[in-house]
Amino acid sequence: MNEFSLIQRFFKEKSLQQQSLKADGVVLGIGDDAALLQPPADQQLVISTDTLVAGRHFPLDTPAHAIGWKSAAVNLSDLAAMGATPQAILLAISLPSADEDWLAQFSQGLFDCCAPAKVQLIGGDTTKSPTLTITVTALGWVPTGQAICRQGAQVGDLVMVSGKLGDAAYALQHPASDLQRKLDYPQARNELGVALRGYASSMLDISDGLAQDLGHILEASQVGAVLQLESLPLSSTLQLLEPHIRFQYALAGGDDYELCFTISPQRLKGFYEKNGSAFQLHVIGEIVAEQGLVLQYQQAPVELNNKGYQHFD
Amino acid sequence: MNEFSLIQRFFKEKSLQQQSLKADGVVLGIGDDAALLQPPADQQLVISTDTLVAGRHFPLDTPAHAIGWKSAAVNLSDLAAMGATPQAILLAISLPSADEDWLAQFSQGLFDCCAPAKVQLIGGDTTKSPTLTITVTALGWVPTGQAICRQGAQVGDLVMVSGKLGDAAYALQHPASDLQRKLDYPQARNELGVALRGYASSMLDISDGLAQDLGHILEASQVGAVLQLESLPLSSTLQLLEPHIRFQYALAGGDDYELCFTISPQRLKGFYEKNGSAFQLHVIGEIVAEQGLVLQYQQAPVELNNKGYQHFD
Repeated sequence: MNEFSLIQRFFKEKSLQQQSLKADGVVLGIGDDAALLQPPADQQLVISTDTLVAGRHFPLDTPAHAIGWKSAAVNLSDLAAMGATPQAILLAISLPSADEDWLAQFSQGLFDCCAPAKVQLIGGDTTKSPTLTITVTALGWVPTGQAICRQGAQVGDLVMVSGKLGDAAYALQHPASDLQRKLDYPQARNELGVALRGYASSMLDISDGLAQDLGHILEASQVGAVLQLESLPLSSTLQLLEPHIRFQYALAGGDDYELCFTISPQRLKGFYEKNGSAFQLHVIGEIVAEQGLVLQYQQAPVELNNKGYQHFD
Repeated sequence: MNEFSLIQRFFKEKSLQQQSLKADGVVLGIGDDAALLQPPADQQLVISTDTLVAGRHFPLDTPAHAIGWKSAAVNLSDLAAMGATPQAILLAISLPSADEDWLAQFSQGLFDCCAPAKVQLIGGDTTKSPTLTITVTALGWVPTGQAICRQGAQVGDLVMVSGKLGDAAYALQHPASDLQRKLDYPQARNELGVALRGYASSMLDISDGLAQDLGHILEASQVGAVLQLESLPLSSTLQLLEPHIRFQYALAGGDDYELCFTISPQRLKGFYEKNGSAFQLHVIGEIVAEQGLVLQYQQAPVELNNKGYQHFD
């Protein structure tokens, strides 16, 4: 099976089958030198790219369906983190051989992740390589001036996250646990990202662990934060672990793909008035003037365990 | 050197240094979850992605500067093939180790290719992998409705190419020849692509060899073509080869990154009246109603040598 029949069979045909889901504005999808899109009026383009390398970003025995899902999800998560409405992805896949079963599962996982968000596959490249490597580029749109950046956190803002932390990292170290699904099938928080436009003062998605990622917000915004570790949302599995272990997963685990954002108490009130309990959100700390990240547990300061962090690198 | 300092040193800083070249409309470049662009008025987005795998898309001993150049050039070429004005690229690079000298050369090659076209690096991802793999996503803009697609060739149109064919394939098989530069430093024909808006009826760039690529135009447009092999533009090095060898390079060589387009004789006249001899263009055949590609040499038909083609796969 050569490159052209591969693209044709597993990606172009499925992409066309999904035309009922087709986002407005895709003038030309797969099949020419480039894709062509009509920008929506008064919107800015939001675009990001992320690579997954086999054995590094997912275990070698990860099911193909999960790899396809995750390849899309981690990129849609970047768009969610900007408050963008996702529209389309491009898929560059390098793989050792054209195994039809594998590709059928992989492409199904990719489309299963994209379909609920009405995200269309509009282009890509298929190449041969000894190392399975998947690079997805995701693009979406945000009303002009409304993107939520890392810069913008203000002293007195609350620090919030969108869901439980550390489960994926736990699952990575405990194969076949009840948290395996959190590792294999991350959920991009695109609806929440859009709902936070005009409310959140800064935002990003947690891919490298809360402590490191929140650090990017603090650096970009030139502020600090105090987190209350007992406020970190944890699954029942993690709650059974010793505190220093469960917090290590939650703070430094990576692969969460939850949103971390800052918001003033007034705006949070407005957000809840508008959205009710549509989203599960958790206040975990506060932005302060003194730069750096301070962790508190039962009202006492806690030091970061650097060795613990490197363990997850 | 970790991922962050890598991105910072070799890509973000250079990207910022090039702000004098900054295309209007880049609201946010490297450094957030995604890049943010302001679409120009009345334009459509053109976007494409291509992967280069070490040892497959370039020889393992290719200089890093050339790899950087080529990674950008092959993607800018896809935009040229649509008649788009390029604006920006995203770079996803997977590499075995963070060799500083290599990265300095690579990034310089990338920027050297982008700078003349005022193309800005706006985002990317750096990952570790046993196989050096580079995926660039390029985006640009074209006035609404003016993109030049593969579909659109009309019976009676001339078939034209923008430069000499087969040199890169020759260089690949003859290391250190006088044509090495054609392999290592392909030139994306972005100015020509833009100039052909409103003139060419169909267009693509030649990456897999003229015969195969022109075949895509013929299929999309549901027409055929007759090519005169003596009209193929060849370098003096290729002209010295036996006809069946030189035509094999020119027809099936790949890696040319010249534009192949169709244009009516009347529009070609108009194009020359407007542009004079600004571009080196060559008429190599004509579009006909009967589907398929017919090759003629000294007024006799020539059969494609399939074995020759596979040789280049």
